[in-house]
Amino acid sequence: MMSEERQLYLNGEIIPESKAKISIFDYWPLLGHCVTEATRTFAHKPFKLREHIERLLRSAKAAYVPCIHTVEELMELTEQVLTLNLHLIEDDDDYRIDHNFSPGLANRHADPDFRSPGPSLVIYVTPLQFHAWAKDYVDGCHIVTAFKREIPADCIDPKIKHRDRIHYRIMENEVAQVDVQAKPLILDLHGNVAQNTGANVFIVSGGSLHTPTSRNSLAGISKETVIELAKNIGIPVFERDIQPYDVMNADEAFLTSTPYCMLPATKFNFTTIGDGKVGRITKQLLDAWSEMVGVDIVQQALSRRLPEDIQTHL
Amino acid sequence: MMSEERQLYLNGEIIPESKAKISIFDYWPLLGHCVTEATRTFAHKPFKLREHIERLLRSAKAAYVPCIHTVEELMELTEQVLTLNLHLIEDDDDYRIDHNFSPGLANRHADPDFRSPGPSLVIYVTPLQFHAWAKDYVDGCHIVTAFKREIPADCIDPKIKHRDRIHYRIMENEVAQVDVQAKPLILDLHGNVAQNTGANVFIVSGGSLHTPTSRNSLAGISKETVIELAKNIGIPVFERDIQPYDVMNADEAFLTSTPYCMLPATKFNFTTIGDGKVGRITKQLLDAWSEMVGVDIVQQALSRRLPEDIQTHL
Amino acid sequence: MMSEERQLYLNGEIIPESKAKISIFDYWPLLGHCVTEATRTFAHKPFKLREHIERLLRSAKAAYVPCIHTVEELMELTEQVLTLNLHLIEDDDDYRIDHNFSPGLANRHADPDFRSPGPSLVIYVTPLQFHAWAKDYVDGCHIVTAFKREIPADCIDPKIKHRDRIHYRIMENEVAQVDVQAKPLILDLHGNVAQNTGANVFIVSGGSLHTPTSRNSLAGISKETVIELAKNIGIPVFERDIQPYDVMNADEAFLTSTPYCMLPATKFNFTTIGDGKVGRITKQLLDAWSEMVGVDIVQQALSRRLPEDIQTHL
Amino acid sequence: MMSEERQLYLNGEIIPESKAKISIFDYWPLLGHCVTEATRTFAHKPFKLREHIERLLRSAKAAYVPCIHTVEELMELTEQVLTLNLHLIEDDDDYRIDHNFSPGLANRHADPDFRSPGPSLVIYVTPLQFHAWAKDYVDGCHIVTAFKREIPADCIDPKIKHRDRIHYRIMENEVAQVDVQAKPLILDLHGNVAQNTGANVFIVSGGSLHTPTSRNSLAGISKETVIELAKNIGIPVFERDIQPYDVMNADEAFLTSTPYCMLPATKFNFTTIGDGKVGRITKQLLDAWSEMVGVDIVQQALSRRLPEDIQTHL
Amino acid sequence: MMSEERQLYLNGEIIPESKAKISIFDYWPLLGHCVTEATRTFAHKPFKLREHIERLLRSAKAAYVPCIHTVEELMELTEQVLTLNLHLIEDDDDYRIDHNFSPGLANRHADPDFRSPGPSLVIYVTPLQFHAWAKDYVDGCHIVTAFKREIPADCIDPKIKHRDRIHYRIMENEVAQVDVQAKPLILDLHGNVAQNTGANVFIVSGGSLHTPTSRNSLAGISKETVIELAKNIGIPVFERDIQPYDVMNADEAFLTSTPYCMLPATKFNFTTIGDGKVGRITKQLLDAWSEMVGVDIVQQALSRRLPEDIQTHL
Amino acid sequence: MMSEERQLYLNGEIIPESKAKISIFDYWPLLGHCVTEATRTFAHKPFKLREHIERLLRSAKAAYVPCIHTVEELMELTEQVLTLNLHLIEDDDDYRIDHNFSPGLANRHADPDFRSPGPSLVIYVTPLQFHAWAKDYVDGCHIVTAFKREIPADCIDPKIKHRDRIHYRIMENEVAQVDVQAKPLILDLHGNVAQNTGANVFIVSGGSLHTPTSRNSLAGISKETVIELAKNIGIPVFERDIQPYDVMNADEAFLTSTPYCMLPATKFNFTTIGDGKVGRITKQLLDAWSEMVGVDIVQQALSRRLPEDIQTHL
Repeated sequence: MMSEERQLYLNGEIIPESKAKISIFDYWPLLGHCVTEATRTFAHKPFKLREHIERLLRSAKAAYVPCIHTVEELMELTEQVLTLNLHLIEDDDDYRIDHNFSPGLANRHADPDFRSPGPSLVIYVTPLQFHAWAKDYVDGCHIVTAFKREIPADCIDPKIKHRDRIHYRIMENEVAQVDVQAKPLILDLHGNVAQNTGANVFIVSGGSLHTPTSRNSLAGISKETVIELAKNIGIPVFERDIQPYDVMNADEAFLTSTPYCMLPATKFNFTTIGDGKVGRITKQLLDAWSEMVGVDIVQQALSRRLPEDIQTHL
Repeated sequence: MMSEERQLYLNGEIIPESKAKISIFDYWPLLGHCVTEATRTFAHKPFKLREHIERLLRSAKAAYVPCIHTVEELMELTEQVLTLNLHLIEDDDDYRIDHNFSPGLANRHADPDFRSPGPSLVIYVTPLQFHAWAKDYVDGCHIVTAFKREIPADCIDPKIKHRDRIHYRIMENEVAQVDVQAKPLILDLHGNVAQNTGANVFIVSGGSLHTPTSRNSLAGISKETVIELAKNIGIPVFERDIQPYDVMNADEAFLTSTPYCMLPATKFNFTTIGDGKVGRITKQLLDAWSEMVGVDIVQQALSRRLPEDIQTHL
Repeated sequence: MMSEERQLYLNGEIIPESKAKISIFDYWPLLGHCVTEATRTFAHKPFKLREHIERLLRSAKAAYVPCIHTVEELMELTEQVLTLNLHLIEDDDDYRIDHNFSPGLANRHADPDFRSPGPSLVIYVTPLQFHAWAKDYVDGCHIVTAFKREIPADCIDPKIKHRDRIHYRIMENEVAQVDVQAKPLILDLHGNVAQNTGANVFIVSGGSLHTPTSRNSLAGISKETVIELAKNIGIPVFERDIQPYDVMNADEAFLTSTPYCMLPATKFNFTTIGDGKVGRITKQLLDAWSEMVGVDIVQQALSRRLPEDIQTHL
Repeated sequence: MMSEERQLYLNGEIIPESKAKISIFDYWPLLGHCVTEATRTFAHKPFKLREHIERLLRSAKAAYVPCIHTVEELMELTEQVLTLNLHLIEDDDDYRIDHNFSPGLANRHADPDFRSPGPSLVIYVTPLQFHAWAKDYVDGCHIVTAFKREIPADCIDPKIKHRDRIHYRIMENEVAQVDVQAKPLILDLHGNVAQNTGANVFIVSGGSLHTPTSRNSLAGISKETVIELAKNIGIPVFERDIQPYDVMNADEAFLTSTPYCMLPATKFNFTTIGDGKVGRITKQLLDAWSEMVGVDIVQQALSRRLPEDIQTHL
Repeated sequence: MMSEERQLYLNGEIIPESKAKISIFDYWPLLGHCVTEATRTFAHKPFKLREHIERLLRSAKAAYVPCIHTVEELMELTEQVLTLNLHLIEDDDDYRIDHNFSPGLANRHADPDFRSPGPSLVIYVTPLQFHAWAKDYVDGCHIVTAFKREIPADCIDPKIKHRDRIHYRIMENEVAQVDVQAKPLILDLHGNVAQNTGANVFIVSGGSLHTPTSRNSLAGISKETVIELAKNIGIPVFERDIQPYDVMNADEAFLTSTPYCMLPATKFNFTTIGDGKVGRITKQLLDAWSEMVGVDIVQQALSRRLPEDIQTHL
Repeated sequence: MMSEERQLYLNGEIIPESKAKISIFDYWPLLGHCVTEATRTFAHKPFKLREHIERLLRSAKAAYVPCIHTVEELMELTEQVLTLNLHLIEDDDDYRIDHNFSPGLANRHADPDFRSPGPSLVIYVTPLQFHAWAKDYVDGCHIVTAFKREIPADCIDPKIKHRDRIHYRIMENEVAQVDVQAKPLILDLHGNVAQNTGANVFIVSGGSLHTPTSRNSLAGISKETVIELAKNIGIPVFERDIQPYDVMNADEAFLTSTPYCMLPATKFNFTTIGDGKVGRITKQLLDAWSEMVGVDIVQQALSRRLPEDIQTHL
C-alpha cells in the first residue's frame, strides 16, 4: 500500500523512498563531495538535533559545500520529514535521520553559462536496526585491528563527517573475513587507536575513561554525551593517545555511535578484554543515558533480537 | 528532440542521460564505495580501452567491489554505449567514457534475508570539453601547491581509481581562491610532489623526464603512454621522488590525464617555469601522441577555444 | 642632524645606527649562528625584559653560543641603550628592542693560533611600526596556509629564537602572492597548526582559548602573557594540537607577538572566521593587556594609521 | 702593508677585506635570507664556475631572492675578484671563492615609500686551508652521528644552498665534544644518511659507490664530479637511501666538498670502516680528479701539513 | 661452600644459581619471546610486588605468553625465593628480584604430536649493586643522546617489559665510546625524549616535574612512585612530550628505575644541567621515598661506594 | 641410544643437544644481545656458507658483539659440527645450521675486577622440517597483513640478523588467530611491504620480479639467490617500495628463506593472488635453484608430506 512507504526530503520535494534517486552528475556521487549527519530519535524525538545540524554546517564550511539554509530551517525541515513518517513505526521503535548535503549538479560540460540549480539536500529516516546489535549489548562485540590506517587530518580532517568511506568499506570487508561478526578498530598512521568505521572508541582502565582526541577521530556527539554522563557520575575522562596495548589490557571497552549510543566490546583480536563480560562502568553509563532520554536503550534492542544475529555494513 | 539525447548504460538498461539517476541507498553515494575509469576516444575510437578496463578490475579487487563481468564483456558494453552516441558529436569531436562500478544496493535495514540485486555498473559518455583546456595548450597552465596533502597508500592506495574525491574538491576550491585558473599540485605527506587532482605530473630537467612513482600517485595510463613515447624518442625517464624545488627549477612541466592527454604547465606558485613558454620536449611528446592516434590533439582543442576561457571542476 | 640618529650597542661600543655593520666573517652572517630576542616598551618601559633576557640565555645555551654576560649585565646594557634613544620618539610612541648574540668572528683561515675576539652582541631599538598593523586591529588580518612546513624540533628546536629565517622569508613571499596583505599560518610536519613566521596562534572556540604547544612553536612570552590574562579573567586555556579545521570553524582567532601583542585574524584561506569581525574575547584580552601596561594598545596603533596600509616583511 | 690585503666585491664596489662589513639591517643577517655558493680554483682557475653560478641562481629562485645579474655577469665579476687577488698567493696555492646573495636592506620601518637599494652581492676569496684536512687525506677522518637531524625538504629544500646553518653549528659543537677531530654524519628524519654539515657522503661497498639522493642532501657539484669520474673509470654508482649499518660495514667511505674535493673517512662512531685505511677506490677517484684538473690534490694539501692539525668550523 | 650460593626458581625447581641454565631451544633465547619484571626490596621486603606481578601479566597478555599462574601464586613463589636467600646478604643490603617468563620449549621439529612442557618461569635475586651508582647520587650522572631511536609502539609497545634489548645494548656501547660513564638518553622517532635503556626520565623546570607519557616509554612503577610522592609534597607533575632543549635548559633532571629508585643527572651531552649539582627537588623526592620505605636510599649506596667507580651494562 | 643424539658446538665444546643450555646470565637471554645466522645444506653440503658467515660478522660489528673468530675458523667449526651429525639423517634429508653469537656472560654484579670469559658461540644443526611446508609448495600459502609494523632501521637495522623476535612472535600469534595456516606479511611504518617474520617477499607482475629494498627488510641470501637466478634466466628484477595493492593484484607471489628457499603464496588476506595457483615464474625459479644445487627442492619436501599439515612457529 502506497501510504505505507516512507517519505523523504530531496531538494525541496517530499517524495517516497522508492523515488529517492539522485543524478549521477550530482557532485555527491560524481566526486564524493557530500557532507552528512546521522541523528536518532528517542521515543520519537530527535536527540541533540541542533548539535548535529551545527556540526553539519561546520563540515560543510570546511569542505566548501555551499549552504543555503540556516540551522533553524534545517531543524524545521528535519522535524517535518520525521513527522511525516512517525506513524509508520511502532511506539517503541525509533528512527535514524540522515542528512546529506552536496553542492548539487556539476558543470559537466564546462559550460561558461552554466548556472548551478543549487546545493542538493536529502533528509531521510530509517527505522533503527535494533536486531543488528542486540546480541552485542549482552555479550559485547569483537573488535579487530583494521589492515589499513585512518586518513590523517593533513589529508581530510576526521572532524568533517562525509560520505567518502571507501576505505571503511575496504576495512569492513577485510575484517569480515577475519571474523564475520567483528568490527574494525582503526589505528592512525602512528599506530594509535583512532576509531571504528562509524564510531568512537572508549576504554575503561583503573576506573577512568580513556578515548582518542579529535586529531584522529570524529568529534562524535555520542562521544560527547558519554563524556558528559561520566562527568556527572564522577568518572574521570581522559582524551589522549591510546595504543592497542591499552585496549588489550583494558578493564572494559565500548564504541559510541548515534544509532546504538554505546556498544560494549569484550574481545579484541580474539583476546578477551577484562573478564570478557560487559563491564560495570559501561552498564552504568548506558543506564544513565537511558534515564536521560527516557528510553531503556538496551531493552529496546533486546526486544527485537533475531533468532540468529546478522551482520550489516550499513 | 528526444533522439538528440545521449544514451547510457545503467545496470543492464540503456537509458537517456536525463534518467541517469541512482538510488541514494546504493553503496556508491551511500558510502562512496565505487571504483571508476575514464577513457577517451581519438577519432571516435576508444584509446587503450583494454588497459582501462583491466585497471578497473584491479581497483575493484583491491576495493572489494564484486565484479560480475569479464574484461571482454565490459569492452563490448562500452563499445555498445559509444556506438549509440557517436552520431551525436561532430566528426572532429571525441568522447570521454566513464565507468562507475559499485556493489549496488546496501542492505539498509540489516535484513537477514536480504538478497543484493547485484553490483551497479554505469557506462556513459561525455563530449570532451576541449574549450576548457584549449588556452592551456598554448600558454600553459598555472599549478599551485594544495593546502592539503595526498592520502597515503597506507590509508587508500592511490592506484585504486575511485570516486571519493572530497579532498580533491576541497583542494580545488582552495586553489581557485588563490588563482581561479590554477590547478592544484598535491604533495604527499613527506612534501614530495604526488599528483594533480586528476592528473599525473611530469617535469623536464636537463633533457630528461621525471615523474613521481605509483607509491603516491595513480598509475596513470596517460602517464604510461608518455613514458612509452619518450622511450621511443630516446628521452630518458625517471620515476622518483620529486620536490617542489624541482618543479620551480624545471625546464618544462606538464600534466597527463585521459581527457587532455598532456597539458603544459608554465607557472608554479606564480613563478614561471623555465622561460614561461610551453617547452620543446612537451611539444615533441604531444606531437608524437597526435601522430600515434591520428588526431592533432592541440589543434582539436584550439578549434573549440572560447572567447573567454572558463574554469571547470568536473 | 647627527643628534637625531639612534644609537646602538655593538660589541662594547655605542655607535650610531648608520655605522651598524658587522663583518661578513662573523658567525652571524657567515653561518647564521646567532640567537636573538625582541622586547618592546610600554610607555617607554621595557615589558618583561628579564623574561626575554633569560630566554635569550636559554637559546644561547641550546645553540652553543658562548655567553659572557649575566642576566643583570644584559638588562643594564639594554636599559642604557634604551635611555640613549628615548628622547628620539614621541611620548606616546614605543620602542622594539632587539638583542642579537653570536660567537663572533670565525677562524676563517683555520689558524691554529687563532684567538677569538669573543662573542658578538648587538642591542638596538626600533620605533614600533604601529601603522603596519593598525588596520588589522580593527578588521582583523587574513591568515593563509604556508606551502612549506615548520622545521621540527628534531632538527632545530622552535624554542630556540634565532635569525635563520630563510624558510619564513620563502613562506612570506609565497603567501604575499596569494594575498599581499595575508600572513602565513605555518603547519607542522603532521599538518597541525604550528605558528606564524613571527607569532603564536590562538583560536577561541566555545568560550575557551586553544593554542599549540611548544613542541612545534616558540614558547612565546606574549603567548604566556595572554595565558596569564585569560586565567585571571577566567577563560580556560588549552595547549594542544590544533588542525586547520579548528581555525576555519573557530569563533575567533588571533596572533600574539612582541611588537603588536595580539593581532586579530578574521579570515583564513579567504574564508571568514566566526562572523568575520574581531571577537569579543579577543577584545577582552587586549583590554586586559592594555590595562596591565597602562597603554591603550589598539588606540596607540590607530593614532598612527596610514591612509593606505602597507605590508612589511620585517 | 695595505697592498697585501685581499680585495672583495661588495654591492658594486671593490674593497679590502677589513672593510667587508654588512649592515645588520640587510636581510642577510637580519633574517638569514641569503643564498650562497663556494667554488674553488685549481692552479688558479675556477673549477666548474658556470655550474656553481647556475646553482646559485636556482637557489635564488627557490628562495625568492631577486637576481639582477645574468650568469655571464656573475662569472665576469667572479673572475675579476679572483684576478685582483691571485698575486697574493703562491703558485701552488689555490682560492676558495664565496658568493653571498641577499635581497638587500629590509624595509625596517615598514615605510610605504621605501625603495630598496637592491639585492646585496658579496664575492670574496679565501686561500684554501690545506693544512686543516691534510692529515685526513692520509689517515682518513672520523665521522660521528649528529644528535640532530637534517631539515627535511618539506621545510627547506636541501638543494637550496644558503647560510642558515645554526643547526650545523649545533651539530659541530656537539660532535666536537664527542671527538674534537670528528665530523658530523647527519641523518634525515627517517634515520637514513643525509650528508655532512658541508659535504656529501659516499660509501664504497662491493666495488660500487653508494650515496644519498638529493631528497635529503645538497645536489653537490663535487658529488656530481665524483659520479662522472666513477662512470669514466667504470665504477657503478647508486643514488639511494643509505643506513648507518651500511657506513659501518662499508669497505671505504669519503666526503665530497668544494674545498677538499674528496676526504676519506676511516672511522664511524669510533669503529673502523673497512680495514681502517684510506681505500683503493677512494684513491683511484682522487687520482682521476687530480689528473683532470692538473693538480695533485693530496700532495697540495700535504705540502702544507701542520706539525699539529687543528680543527676548524668554517 | 655450597650453602653460600644463592638459590633460584626455575620451572618448578629450586636450584643453585650456578645451575641456572636454560635450553637454547626455549622460546626465550631462541626467539626472544620472554616478558620480565625487576622488583627490589627495601629492608629485605619487596616493594610494590603486586604492582610488578600485575604488570608482568599485562606484558604476558600483550605478548601472547601463556600464563599458568595467578598473581597470588607468583607473589608466593617470589617470597619463597627471596626468603631462601635473605641470610646471604647483610642487614643493610637489599635484593633485586627478576621474573622472566616465556612460552617454554619451542616445537623445534614442527612435530604435529608435540606437547609443550609448558611456559618457562625463572625467579632469581641479585644483591643490589649500590657501588655502581653511588657516585651518581652525589655528583649526578651524565646522559648522552643515543644514536638510535626508541622502537615505536606501532612495532613493540614500550609498555611491554621484555628482554629483547639488543638495541639498548647497541646504544650503551655507542654512548660508552662517547663517555664511558654516560647513560643513553633515547629519543623517539619524532625526536622527543623517550627514556633511558632501563629507566624513565624526569626533568624539573619552574618547580614542576615533566616526564614523557607511556606512548614512548615504559609505564614505570618507579615513575609512578615519584609521581605519587610529588603529588603528596605538592609538586605539579606533567606527563607530556619533552624535547632535548627542555633537558638542556632544565633546572634538574633524574632517572627512575627499580634498582636505584632515582638517579640525579647533572650533565647532558657534556653541558651542565642547571647549576650542575644534584637539585633541591630531586633530593626532596629521594628523601620522601627513603622515608616511605624506611631506608635511607642514598646512604645505603654511599656506604658501598668503591674507591674508583665502575661502569656496568647489566 | 646416546649415539643417536645430535652434537653441537657450545663455547669450545662439542656436547649433545640435551645438554645445550646457556646461563640465564649470558647476554643472549639476559638482554637479547645475540646475532645469528641460519644456513642450510643441499645434499649434505652447506649452501653459501661463506656468505652467511660474512653476514654474521657484519651483524656482529653493527651490534657491538665482539668477535674472536675469523671467517675461516667459523667455517671450519661449522663443517666440523655438520660432519658429526651427518650420519644421523637420511641421504635425502638435509640440515639447517644455526649460529648464535653473543658477548657472553654479563658482569651481573658490576664487579670492577670482572673478566669476561669471552663471547658465546653456539653452532647446531636441525633436520629440515620439510613436512611443515610441503603442502605450500603445491597449493601456495596464505599471507595475512600483520597488525604490528616492522621495526624501522632508525631503531634496529633490519640488516642485522638477531634473535630479538618478540614482535614476530606477537605477529605470528595474531595471524594464527586469523588463519592458523597463514603467515604474516609485515608492513613498514609507511605501509609498504617489508617482509615475513623470517622471509623476504617477492611478487611477479607483468613478467618482472619486485621485492622491497634492504631499507626495511633483511638483505636475505635466499633473496640474493633468487635475484641471481632471475638475472640468469632474463627476468627483470626491481628492488623498490611495494604496497599491499601490488600483492593483491600480483600475478604471482612467493617468500624466500633459507630453510625452504622459495615458498609460493597464493592467497593474501583471503583473496586469491593471480589465478590462485603456484605461478609459472615461481616454478621456473624453483627449478633453476634445484638444478643449481642438484636437489629437487620441491620433491624433497613432498616426499615427507604429512597426512595432515601442521603449523610451526620455529
